[in-house]
Amino acid sequence: MNNEIIVFALTSSIKLADEICDHLDIRRGKCKVTHFSDGEILVEPEESVRGKHVFIVQSTNAPTSSTVMEVLIALDACKRASADEVTVVMPYYGYARQDRKARARQPISARLMADLYEASGADRMVTIDLHAPQIQGFFKIPTDDLSIVSMFGQYYRNKCQTGEIEGEIVIVSPDHGGAARARKLADTIPNSTVAIIDKRRTKPNEAEAINLIGSVENKTAIIIDDIIDTGGSMMSGIDMLYKNGAKKVFAACSHGVLSGNAINNIKESKISELVVSNSIELPEAALGVEKIKQISVAYMLAKTIEAIKDTTPVSNIYSLFND
Amino acid sequence: MNNEIIVFALTSSIKLADEICDHLDIRRGKCKVTHFSDGEILVEPEESVRGKHVFIVQSTNAPTSSTVMEVLIALDACKRASADEVTVVMPYYGYARQDRKARARQPISARLMADLYEASGADRMVTIDLHAPQIQGFFKIPTDDLSIVSMFGQYYRNKCQTGEIEGEIVIVSPDHGGAARARKLADTIPNSTVAIIDKRRTKPNEAEAINLIGSVENKTAIIIDDIIDTGGSMMSGIDMLYKNGAKKVFAACSHGVLSGNAINNIKESKISELVVSNSIELPEAALGVEKIKQISVAYMLAKTIEAIKDTTPVSNIYSLFND
Amino acid sequence: MNNEIIVFALTSSIKLADEICDHLDIRRGKCKVTHFSDGEILVEPEESVRGKHVFIVQSTNAPTSSTVMEVLIALDACKRASADEVTVVMPYYGYARQDRKARARQPISARLMADLYEASGADRMVTIDLHAPQIQGFFKIPTDDLSIVSMFGQYYRNKCQTGEIEGEIVIVSPDHGGAARARKLADTIPNSTVAIIDKRRTKPNEAEAINLIGSVENKTAIIIDDIIDTGGSMMSGIDMLYKNGAKKVFAACSHGVLSGNAINNIKESKISELVVSNSIELPEAALGVEKIKQISVAYMLAKTIEAIKDTTPVSNIYSLFND
Amino acid sequence: MNNEIIVFALTSSIKLADEICDHLDIRRGKCKVTHFSDGEILVEPEESVRGKHVFIVQSTNAPTSSTVMEVLIALDACKRASADEVTVVMPYYGYARQDRKARARQPISARLMADLYEASGADRMVTIDLHAPQIQGFFKIPTDDLSIVSMFGQYYRNKCQTGEIEGEIVIVSPDHGGAARARKLADTIPNSTVAIIDKRRTKPNEAEAINLIGSVENKTAIIIDDIIDTGGSMMSGIDMLYKNGAKKVFAACSHGVLSGNAINNIKESKISELVVSNSIELPEAALGVEKIKQISVAYMLAKTIEAIKDTTPVSNIYSLFND
Amino acid sequence: MNNEIIVFALTSSIKLADEICDHLDIRRGKCKVTHFSDGEILVEPEESVRGKHVFIVQSTNAPTSSTVMEVLIALDACKRASADEVTVVMPYYGYARQDRKARARQPISARLMADLYEASGADRMVTIDLHAPQIQGFFKIPTDDLSIVSMFGQYYRNKCQTGEIEGEIVIVSPDHGGAARARKLADTIPNSTVAIIDKRRTKPNEAEAINLIGSVENKTAIIIDDIIDTGGSMMSGIDMLYKNGAKKVFAACSHGVLSGNAINNIKESKISELVVSNSIELPEAALGVEKIKQISVAYMLAKTIEAIKDTTPVSNIYSLFND
Amino acid sequence: MNNEIIVFALTSSIKLADEICDHLDIRRGKCKVTHFSDGEILVEPEESVRGKHVFIVQSTNAPTSSTVMEVLIALDACKRASADEVTVVMPYYGYARQDRKARARQPISARLMADLYEASGADRMVTIDLHAPQIQGFFKIPTDDLSIVSMFGQYYRNKCQTGEIEGEIVIVSPDHGGAARARKLADTIPNSTVAIIDKRRTKPNEAEAINLIGSVENKTAIIIDDIIDTGGSMMSGIDMLYKNGAKKVFAACSHGVLSGNAINNIKESKISELVVSNSIELPEAALGVEKIKQISVAYMLAKTIEAIKDTTPVSNIYSLFND
Repeated sequence: MNNEIIVFALTSSIKLADEICDHLDIRRGKCKVTHFSDGEILVEPEESVRGKHVFIVQSTNAPTSSTVMEVLIALDACKRASADEVTVVMPYYGYARQDRKARARQPISARLMADLYEASGADRMVTIDLHAPQIQGFFKIPTDDLSIVSMFGQYYRNKCQTGEIEGEIVIVSPDHGGAARARKLADTIPNSTVAIIDKRRTKPNEAEAINLIGSVENKTAIIIDDIIDTGGSMMSGIDMLYKNGAKKVFAACSHGVLSGNAINNIKESKISELVVSNSIELPEAALGVEKIKQISVAYMLAKTIEAIKDTTPVSNIYSLFND
Repeated sequence: MNNEIIVFALTSSIKLADEICDHLDIRRGKCKVTHFSDGEILVEPEESVRGKHVFIVQSTNAPTSSTVMEVLIALDACKRASADEVTVVMPYYGYARQDRKARARQPISARLMADLYEASGADRMVTIDLHAPQIQGFFKIPTDDLSIVSMFGQYYRNKCQTGEIEGEIVIVSPDHGGAARARKLADTIPNSTVAIIDKRRTKPNEAEAINLIGSVENKTAIIIDDIIDTGGSMMSGIDMLYKNGAKKVFAACSHGVLSGNAINNIKESKISELVVSNSIELPEAALGVEKIKQISVAYMLAKTIEAIKDTTPVSNIYSLFND
Repeated sequence: MNNEIIVFALTSSIKLADEICDHLDIRRGKCKVTHFSDGEILVEPEESVRGKHVFIVQSTNAPTSSTVMEVLIALDACKRASADEVTVVMPYYGYARQDRKARARQPISARLMADLYEASGADRMVTIDLHAPQIQGFFKIPTDDLSIVSMFGQYYRNKCQTGEIEGEIVIVSPDHGGAARARKLADTIPNSTVAIIDKRRTKPNEAEAINLIGSVENKTAIIIDDIIDTGGSMMSGIDMLYKNGAKKVFAACSHGVLSGNAINNIKESKISELVVSNSIELPEAALGVEKIKQISVAYMLAKTIEAIKDTTPVSNIYSLFND
Repeated sequence: MNNEIIVFALTSSIKLADEICDHLDIRRGKCKVTHFSDGEILVEPEESVRGKHVFIVQSTNAPTSSTVMEVLIALDACKRASADEVTVVMPYYGYARQDRKARARQPISARLMADLYEASGADRMVTIDLHAPQIQGFFKIPTDDLSIVSMFGQYYRNKCQTGEIEGEIVIVSPDHGGAARARKLADTIPNSTVAIIDKRRTKPNEAEAINLIGSVENKTAIIIDDIIDTGGSMMSGIDMLYKNGAKKVFAACSHGVLSGNAINNIKESKISELVVSNSIELPEAALGVEKIKQISVAYMLAKTIEAIKDTTPVSNIYSLFND
Repeated sequence: MNNEIIVFALTSSIKLADEICDHLDIRRGKCKVTHFSDGEILVEPEESVRGKHVFIVQSTNAPTSSTVMEVLIALDACKRASADEVTVVMPYYGYARQDRKARARQPISARLMADLYEASGADRMVTIDLHAPQIQGFFKIPTDDLSIVSMFGQYYRNKCQTGEIEGEIVIVSPDHGGAARARKLADTIPNSTVAIIDKRRTKPNEAEAINLIGSVENKTAIIIDDIIDTGGSMMSGIDMLYKNGAKKVFAACSHGVLSGNAINNIKESKISELVVSNSIELPEAALGVEKIKQISVAYMLAKTIEAIKDTTPVSNIYSLFND
Repeated sequence: MNNEIIVFALTSSIKLADEICDHLDIRRGKCKVTHFSDGEILVEPEESVRGKHVFIVQSTNAPTSSTVMEVLIALDACKRASADEVTVVMPYYGYARQDRKARARQPISARLMADLYEASGADRMVTIDLHAPQIQGFFKIPTDDLSIVSMFGQYYRNKCQTGEIEGEIVIVSPDHGGAARARKLADTIPNSTVAIIDKRRTKPNEAEAINLIGSVENKTAIIIDDIIDTGGSMMSGIDMLYKNGAKKVFAACSHGVLSGNAINNIKESKISELVVSNSIELPEAALGVEKIKQISVAYMLAKTIEAIKDTTPVSNIYSLFND
């Protein structure tokens, strides 16, 4: 072990890794990813990793099979090349929503992914806002699951100070599972309450909102969720909130998956603003859309990499975002 | 393999195992559990398990360390004695609430238990109403997590038919995490709605209810939870529901841990009735308490063991409780 | 265990699995594969696998990441659903060519894939004409690597009898590594000799033929290879064989990957005929092309599945193709 | 890795750990152990362990299930919190006597414990006078099994010099298995011989002494054993030694389990003195008993921790006790 | 699985396996073992093992490295050839005496061997009179350790009845570790006592007897040990027993390793008779030696294989030798 | 970890290890290997390895079972003695040729060996010219497979410069599998071509050359192979090359196994010179034979050990031999 670190980016997180490296004041490591015409992938570190602590930055968003496979192959390459330790920095953890058997004979793919990363040689994971906190337990290796919620709190407190948001605020969870997250955000915003959309999700990617529990009347509503995928369930949520008397509806989602018709839906919706992190790179189509804002997790990840390198506590990092 | 099954009970689940064996029309297997004065435990199957499929029935409630250890030692004994396959039937899964890192440097003991059972030789698990469905993913071996919710549905529909419950019904989740469970129960009871107690749990075993989301006014409230432990959080919930206009308050909890002052709390509370399953044996102190009812999971477990033996789908079993 | 078998097909091998099931005289098992808009995959067996021996048929050709991922998720689903044993029938084994470190810091992805299948629960593999026979050793689980060479032998002996091929025959290996395969085919065709194309492969998918070792003058040449990918190296080989005096050039490849510009290259080449197996389904573009013939491995695979089920030797199967 | 060490104590070894830390001249690490009313345990390191070498000091004496469980949970917490390496310092190894199948279908719990510690993340063990030296082989991880015998030798040589012991000395093994230990002690005490009590142990915790092999007549007898549990077998041994003419009977046991009626038995017996180590803390009831002496292993363990930290040979430590 | 068994012999146990097969009334399976001139070994089962339960019979006596390697390679061959289950019947377990760290930096080769057999695919072990019963705990897989002691008991009771042995009998353990074995034999022979040779073994293969504990005067002494290797320590024991007044000295050893000068030593010694089992084949040199008798374990092993096949308790087998 | 290295030699590679240590300017570590008369082996490091990086140098040539077993036991001893990391430097990898199932029911012993080394605790391997490059993939741990080919290139270029070789040169592969190696050597020798001997190897150690592909007429032929074992196949190759008009025949083999009648064969053959490395020590019989030359890999291995210690790229080492 020579106590050096090296940060590699795979195809889905190159910009983010560059930002991280800027914060760390290091050069991003050279690592070549080739996609052959026959569908196979080759990942080749282009500088020595022997004895180093390698950080592989990659979100496993779409094309998910391919982004996952890149991580697995990169791990194999680094371990065989005698890397001392390999940490996978995975801002967005694909398959997180397949975290339980919702029906007979379903896989638990979120656990399967954990097994695959471990079997390929991962020594440590860094993730952000996992769909369920239990997913940390799918890993045997140490895992640091960071949270963007305090950054979102800072973001909206700022809007209050600038007067962009006025009056009472209600934090809305789009489903039962997210209620704890809504409460956590409410805790960071003075005088805010909580409401929950009573929804049954029948199949992945589809959802049916049926009811509002709590009141949004004459308030500014901020919907908070970990993932915005096709956006279908959020859109019907927004309409319902307005029908229930909300003055304005904002939304904050850690991970902007934005698949299918999501971007059009957002454009055409009555949402005031959607803020997502750059855990997933915004698609082309979203770049010009004014309603979609992005905040960066690069500084938080850089500080985490630094803490791991220096073996100082990762938990100190959150204090950075408490004003 | 000789296709025979044998059902052993360890110390926490002897009565339940006897009931199960009655339903299966087999004799319970002889297995001696000795607790020595020096604190060590010895588990000795007293009949041959060679080539058989062994089912070990044991809930890991208090004394948890000891009930867990009995399972681990029993597994070692059975595997070394050439059992073909060992299924642990664990109606109550101890440590299920330590399923995530709530704070820095916490263990994830629910995953640790899974690893310990697997390391000791378990081939399969049968559980009931795991605290979080993700816990199934803590296991690599096949796990069947049964649910009592449909039995509770049958139980309350019956109360409606006999007139014990009249008028509108609201199913109340005592916290955010249980909202999906409340919805699931509501689905089995015609014309019921859902409400949620907005609570922050700061430390295990302590809880602070802060708010009600939804309405219980002039309705019969049925609080549903997976576990009732010290009962503290439920008691404050009951009071609040009455303050918010509930006519009557019932409670249904899958697992009656009932630790600390729980039984006294229930006796002195205004709750109409608490129903728990026999996943955990009722303590002496609870036996004479009229407000505490128990329904048996023995038939459901017997049918599950039968299905596993006959390799028929376990999912069919639920239809038994849909009237 | 109930001694029943069930054959599932994933997306790349549905036709082949149907053929296999016809030979086995069973209905193909129902198994739903969903590709969500966010890039994730869900595999759900739609009938009980409990206690059964499941055969998953899937070649891991392009889109390779996705076809591999389907296998991994299907394995997880089957094992969690208590399948007794799961055999992966993988006629084409993706990543077989990344079977060694050709350069510093390269992964050995063929071994990685083996680890991933094992980590996900595979109990046994069935493959066809692995790129290197050593790949069997990448697995710890039993692996049966079948060979199509005797079927090719039968195919060309037939052409000799019908007069389609006349005179001397030379079996040509397109590179050094395939010389043993050429010899094996030559052994099944009376009076044939062997020649080798002296080629350096610098990167995967690219190749540079430089020389012919041996003589093809005035002979019918049959190039044999395990994989035809972009076809680039084979095309330059064909030209060179004609320049060296070959009368006619045939080609037989176990696996028709046919990526990139392969089909056009073949159409425009002077090759008399290319025969591939249906280990990989022919792309649309190849269907009308007269020069491309396909022979089916379904019967051989059906016989193998039968042997595995009946625990009779798999090695007996080859005698079926020795006339 | 940052080359720092931290020493944690769990509930059974707090005093011992404090003594060790005094010798090491460091502050004992803060680690909170909570026992909830429902029987579950939570272990939380209260200072950062990231990159450190953690030593967990805990004997697994009664309540054994609980003291074992604390170790397992502490290991999980430390590994998930990114400790670089965790060494379990377990002066008394519970379940050591269940080290073989004495009867059909018995577990081998001493091996099971080893598997559990390894599965929970232990990197190294330090033990003292394991019941059988073969137990080291139950571990795959490095294990240092220290011996107190040279300390006992030093102790009795001192008694000879002060005149407390006069005349011939015979070292007595209370059973066949301990004869080597008796010989080892005899080697450190000039002019001593060995005798053996011919005993059949029928069940754990019970024993039946049947005969003396060798002579104790007119000698001072020192019984040596690794564990004194209920003391039953030792008491009958003492009587027999006096009947056979022993002048005085001393006893030295590495581990004072002292369960059941042990302390009363000792008080009422004709034993001159029993010396045990502080591998297990003396129970209240034993504190005032003059016949029971305790010698400390803290210095030996501190030196061992130092050697492990500095990567110097542990075997040098014994020379400290050879006068 | 097809419920068939097949018994293979490797090079050290062919005669024994033939005897076993006679008792089982089956033909010994064909399995070719080739030793090449370059020192490598090839083991090839020559009949199908697919789905069968294979029993590999092999003692790992000298040439130990080679007999161990044969087992490992045979296991690999059988598992890759889809054997359902493989049991290694190892009457003599090589390296059993390296079962603990006697000195710093020693290996624990008895555990290492267990790991190697497990890593190569062994599903179960059958052994006889392991040097230490703890070695069973070196295995995670089920292990049946049979004992010849009851056969020896039967053997000597017979000698008493025929008058070959008259008067009092004393069972002598050649060292401390064997005292329990001596007691066990004494229990089967009416009116016998026990004596122990007080010996320090400084290095493997060398031993130094120093003292006799107990009395042999005017008695017939029967030395019992698990292994007779070079015989050095036994020879000095015999002399000492005669000096101490023994009338006659017999010896019974489970395993006749008889290495070095053992056979000459025995011939020239005053021993009346040495009886060993055929766990190890007698060397040529021992065949004509009248003082060396052999009793067969074939029937006991055949009954064990039968019990394993029929999943009946192995422990019943001992009753066969209790007259 | 204390960043120190220690180099041990086992019995087959003592001279080589001494040479390596000379290059490294360190003293070879003391490690005692005892072969007992009963066939067992004991390996005892005689100096502390705690916290050190140990390099075990051992080729696993004949007596293969014994040289393999020494490595396994040495690994166990080093890991139990708390070595920080153990690298096995195995210049000749025994069993490399059993790298695939050539026939039904054959083991894949080259993979088995990899599993055994890993199961015994190896952290890294260094090998030279593995029989197939795929064998690297048999390991999960990092493996550096060095090549002697560039040293051979340097060796023959030198012969050209001194005039010992004149005219055209053809590099001959003795079989199909070695053609890539021949090409690799040809690339280092200006103006050389390639020819291949068309051979079917029916069983290990036997071979039948049948044909030459390519031309050797009037050229100096250099046969290159990884292993020369009995030499049978090479001898028939030499004769054939002379018959086909070769002027002179040289041979270069990485590993001189030279078993059976090899040395006599070489002496009596018309070969001009055979050069082998000292990966295997030359047998006595070969020492005086002028035709057999040896080049040393000690410097290359020393540089590799240095690179591993200093965590610099191993791939740089080859440049040392490119003049």
